[in-house]
Amino acid sequence: MGIHSVVLIGAGRVATQLGLTFVRHQIPVLQVYSRTAASASALAKTTGSDFTDDLSNLNQQADLYIISVTDDSIIQIVNQLNLENKTVAHTSGSVPLEILAPVTASYGVFYPLNTFSKDKAIDFANTPFCIEASDPQTEHKLLQLARLISSDVRLINSQQRAVIHLAAVFACNFTNFMMVNADEILRNQGISHNILLPLINETISKLIAISPKEAQTGPALRNDREIIKKHLEMLATDPDKKMLYQLISEQIQTYFSKEK
Amino acid sequence: MGIHSVVLIGAGRVATQLGLTFVRHQIPVLQVYSRTAASASALAKTTGSDFTDDLSNLNQQADLYIISVTDDSIIQIVNQLNLENKTVAHTSGSVPLEILAPVTASYGVFYPLNTFSKDKAIDFANTPFCIEASDPQTEHKLLQLARLISSDVRLINSQQRAVIHLAAVFACNFTNFMMVNADEILRNQGISHNILLPLINETISKLIAISPKEAQTGPALRNDREIIKKHLEMLATDPDKKMLYQLISEQIQTYFSKEK
Repeated sequence: MGIHSVVLIGAGRVATQLGLTFVRHQIPVLQVYSRTAASASALAKTTGSDFTDDLSNLNQQADLYIISVTDDSIIQIVNQLNLENKTVAHTSGSVPLEILAPVTASYGVFYPLNTFSKDKAIDFANTPFCIEASDPQTEHKLLQLARLISSDVRLINSQQRAVIHLAAVFACNFTNFMMVNADEILRNQGISHNILLPLINETISKLIAISPKEAQTGPALRNDREIIKKHLEMLATDPDKKMLYQLISEQIQTYFSKEK
Repeated sequence: MGIHSVVLIGAGRVATQLGLTFVRHQIPVLQVYSRTAASASALAKTTGSDFTDDLSNLNQQADLYIISVTDDSIIQIVNQLNLENKTVAHTSGSVPLEILAPVTASYGVFYPLNTFSKDKAIDFANTPFCIEASDPQTEHKLLQLARLISSDVRLINSQQRAVIHLAAVFACNFTNFMMVNADEILRNQGISHNILLPLINETISKLIAISPKEAQTGPALRNDREIIKKHLEMLATDPDKKMLYQLISEQIQTYFSKEK
């Protein structure tokens, strides 16, 4: 009844990390598909799987087929798949469940909410898994599989999942881009990024101890016009950073003046 | 020769945390000054100090006078102070050293690079202290005091300090505002902020393991126009968040297309 074997459709960051975790948990990955044979082969080597770059050669023996490709490509995969009597799931934060309905009667979403890089293994044990399924039996299967990997498994519908993904773009991608800017500002003056690490750690630890709203500090919050002016002058030769500084500072002021 | 006692001019977040740390390290805080007697009194109670709201009543027995007020207020304090034969330092990231020259011959900067909140004690042991001084003897005194509190003490001139402060605004204040937005997006849909915490931890741990540039992920980096469009539609009723999303996504695309 449960899921005892998997085929991975996609060989990107998420597929790679999932594949490695499945194997570590005794769930064999029978096959890896990718458009490019080299990518399929590279992942298949680490998971001890077969590989293919042809969807018509898909292994038919697995319990679960996980589609983990860019959002735009999911529909193209779906149009070429016929997996009646199998369970199919995608791993996207933003694509609705129902996109998989043409493939089989048993379909779902298996979305790990984290950030995946090529060069850094992910700890799935604390990663929230957002599960959604076509029917209670599929739901049960996907929940079971997720609970094998993670202690934080949640039933989340497509609309909530899209909201969570949007929030994650702010919390992760946009946050990281602020760090890219900070890093570059220091590097341009020959100062090492490591001077900021305690500050960054404290920023994050405050988020957990108190809310982000209570944790806000800085010149914009204090409405310290002299520093804001000075900072904008320092950024005069870098119009992108200047625009970013200006917009975010204005929004901090607007947001917190409404709050009062 | 060293610093054996302190007077705090200011009773805000930084003054409070410094005062508590000095006392913990056997450096008595003789007096706390604040414009408002209530603030001076509140901090003085926790540090076992006298307090005053009148600069002409300043205790004349301390080795070091630390001015820890908003940047705009430093000049007003300076204009009222006469502390010949004493050492005076300010704690600002952005104000030049030389602002203190009218007060005494021995002056410096004692800038702890961190984020300070009312309700959360700071760990100074790992906080970088940026030190700058009028002369080698004052420099030595301030370095000694900082090393008593922290394992990361650096000589940083006024121009570098301003750059570090600007980078810190991006890394801390702007990052936190991204979290404020993420939090609100979730809260509006009744979803708890805690679902993002593993992602946030991973985002930060990646910054340390690999560089922010290598750590960048997300729809903008992938140039995933469908998701970006969908996210902008979801933000249609919130023009500020929409503008922020649009500008940062554009900048991520511009920045990383230049990099290639």
